[in-house]
Amino acid sequence: MNTKNVKAFGTQAPEADLKQMSISRREVTAKDVEIDILYCGVCHSDLHTARNEWGATQYPNVPGHEIVGKVVKVGSGVTKYKVGDLVGVGCMVDSCRECSSCKEGLEQYCEHDNIQTYNSYDKHLNMQTFGGYSESVVVDEDFVLSVPSNLDLAATAPLLCAGITTFSPLRHANVGPGKKVGIVGIGGLGHMAVKIAKAMGAYVVVITTSQSKVEDAKRLGADDVVLSTDANQMKNNARTLDFILDCVSAQHDINAYLSLIKRDGGLTLVGAPEHPLSVSAFSLILNRISFSGSLIGGIKQTQEMLDFCGKHNITSDIELIQIQDINKAYDRLLKGDVKYRFVIDMASLKNN
Amino acid sequence: MNTKNVKAFGTQAPEADLKQMSISRREVTAKDVEIDILYCGVCHSDLHTARNEWGATQYPNVPGHEIVGKVVKVGSGVTKYKVGDLVGVGCMVDSCRECSSCKEGLEQYCEHDNIQTYNSYDKHLNMQTFGGYSESVVVDEDFVLSVPSNLDLAATAPLLCAGITTFSPLRHANVGPGKKVGIVGIGGLGHMAVKIAKAMGAYVVVITTSQSKVEDAKRLGADDVVLSTDANQMKNNARTLDFILDCVSAQHDINAYLSLIKRDGGLTLVGAPEHPLSVSAFSLILNRISFSGSLIGGIKQTQEMLDFCGKHNITSDIELIQIQDINKAYDRLLKGDVKYRFVIDMASLKNN
Repeated sequence: MNTKNVKAFGTQAPEADLKQMSISRREVTAKDVEIDILYCGVCHSDLHTARNEWGATQYPNVPGHEIVGKVVKVGSGVTKYKVGDLVGVGCMVDSCRECSSCKEGLEQYCEHDNIQTYNSYDKHLNMQTFGGYSESVVVDEDFVLSVPSNLDLAATAPLLCAGITTFSPLRHANVGPGKKVGIVGIGGLGHMAVKIAKAMGAYVVVITTSQSKVEDAKRLGADDVVLSTDANQMKNNARTLDFILDCVSAQHDINAYLSLIKRDGGLTLVGAPEHPLSVSAFSLILNRISFSGSLIGGIKQTQEMLDFCGKHNITSDIELIQIQDINKAYDRLLKGDVKYRFVIDMASLKNN
Repeated sequence: MNTKNVKAFGTQAPEADLKQMSISRREVTAKDVEIDILYCGVCHSDLHTARNEWGATQYPNVPGHEIVGKVVKVGSGVTKYKVGDLVGVGCMVDSCRECSSCKEGLEQYCEHDNIQTYNSYDKHLNMQTFGGYSESVVVDEDFVLSVPSNLDLAATAPLLCAGITTFSPLRHANVGPGKKVGIVGIGGLGHMAVKIAKAMGAYVVVITTSQSKVEDAKRLGADDVVLSTDANQMKNNARTLDFILDCVSAQHDINAYLSLIKRDGGLTLVGAPEHPLSVSAFSLILNRISFSGSLIGGIKQTQEMLDFCGKHNITSDIELIQIQDINKAYDRLLKGDVKYRFVIDMASLKNN
């Protein structure tokens, strides 16, 4: 298979800083789209993987799964995209396409393991996949998304992971007018959840441990803010919410949040705390509450999310960085010092 | 208010044995039914309450909420029952009747606290309610159930708690033909769940830690049995079940059971372990699994359950005891030494 070398940023070992390197990309095959990457969001999963915190990283590792760019070449059989189109790539670049999950458009739950954008198996090159911290990427058109032209392109990149990860469970819970929805954890995911839930027509309540986030939560669109460290506020809001989207990836007391949910409501977790959460049986039994999880979203729904964000003019709040500052950005990410997503301007790689 | 004294069995203190005592029952008011109690099931909640293990017991305490008997008197406004009818009383004898839960027939989730059959507030006598370990009980007709005449009456008593507690979540999960349903914890609740899920038309898989329960699970109606202590069996059954009803009230590893559930399936807990359960975020996120709870069932659904059991000839497997043996029965209950429910023959109280 013909390949070409492109510039990228990645790591050679868990403790190593990310630095510039050269990687191979395949030439487009019949169904492939080659994308010149313009912006790439920085997801906490990038850091987890670069530092082998989930234990399965193959090195070298090139992170990045919030990719937006421009189509520069298409294979002979490509029908959905043409050169010049604005497109995106999220967390997946392929799946088995044959299991019941894939057939239902839920490739994120592929029963034979979908192919993730980085640190997965690239059948074309018989090695690990490389992500979006690079000049370009070649992806099967079925896993390429169309990006609305009215949105700020850099601020659109985080929609490809943070956007769909929150949109999918909100849709699954039928969030909309007349529903009172709580959002916990106002970071990269949570700030998107507030904007999306609000645009879906729900009454949005941000629940935060931090007085300093109250004003910002309202600016993002929250109708109300509950300070979870204030026992009176928590008590006054007991059994008032239809649904909670929990975007916290650190350890936290899930039972406190479950107490805010009405009978037959639910809490869905999209953050992934490292250690198990303690759940009291009574938190679930006494009001028939459900506690569930959700993983990104399928390709079809990711397109629906992008179109929805285009229609409602929703993007991420971002801080644009040069790729040479990625290690400093990771340090700040660990401290929660970003409002609310770093996005890499890939011109900084190309011009170096 | 006119009252009369009746014989009962109850406790005066957490450490005290149950012994015979005299309690007051009100004379029937317009909407009341007086029931001569023939049999009363022995639920683990009886023991928890008698011994103040949930911390809110008022003494004296007379347990018992799996009551069947015969109507001996009705108030002037009673329309549903007449003298001689076979009836039952479960965990509740009243509720606020005005909140949204009550209006939806979900009195078990009454927002103003329903009135439980024992250790709740009796507005008529301005004291605690007394349960079914007694000669008779007086209950508003709206909380009295009609008992099918074709069933063995003693073996019907446990349906009033163990039956509805398992029937309700199985119905809520739309268990029926084409569904593969796991039942965990083959005791008083679980053995009813196997019979009911089978009668609903599901393929029933019992999951047990104990080789000794395999044969009995099949006798109860299980189509298959998975030994949870056998890693190979657990692996071979990963992602095969649509739903699990978890009837275990001791601590247990919920994540092992969650691994058996298909994408978009769920596990509902009806046992109430004392300490919180540890739930891994990944157990829920990777296949959009839901973990929920369920509490007994409403009055309307309890009648539906009794009619269903009448139609399918379902009763509990019981060991009939004299009320004078209740303290020994509690000791055996603690050791799990009962197949599967003790039921008290109330003639033993009346004739003493």
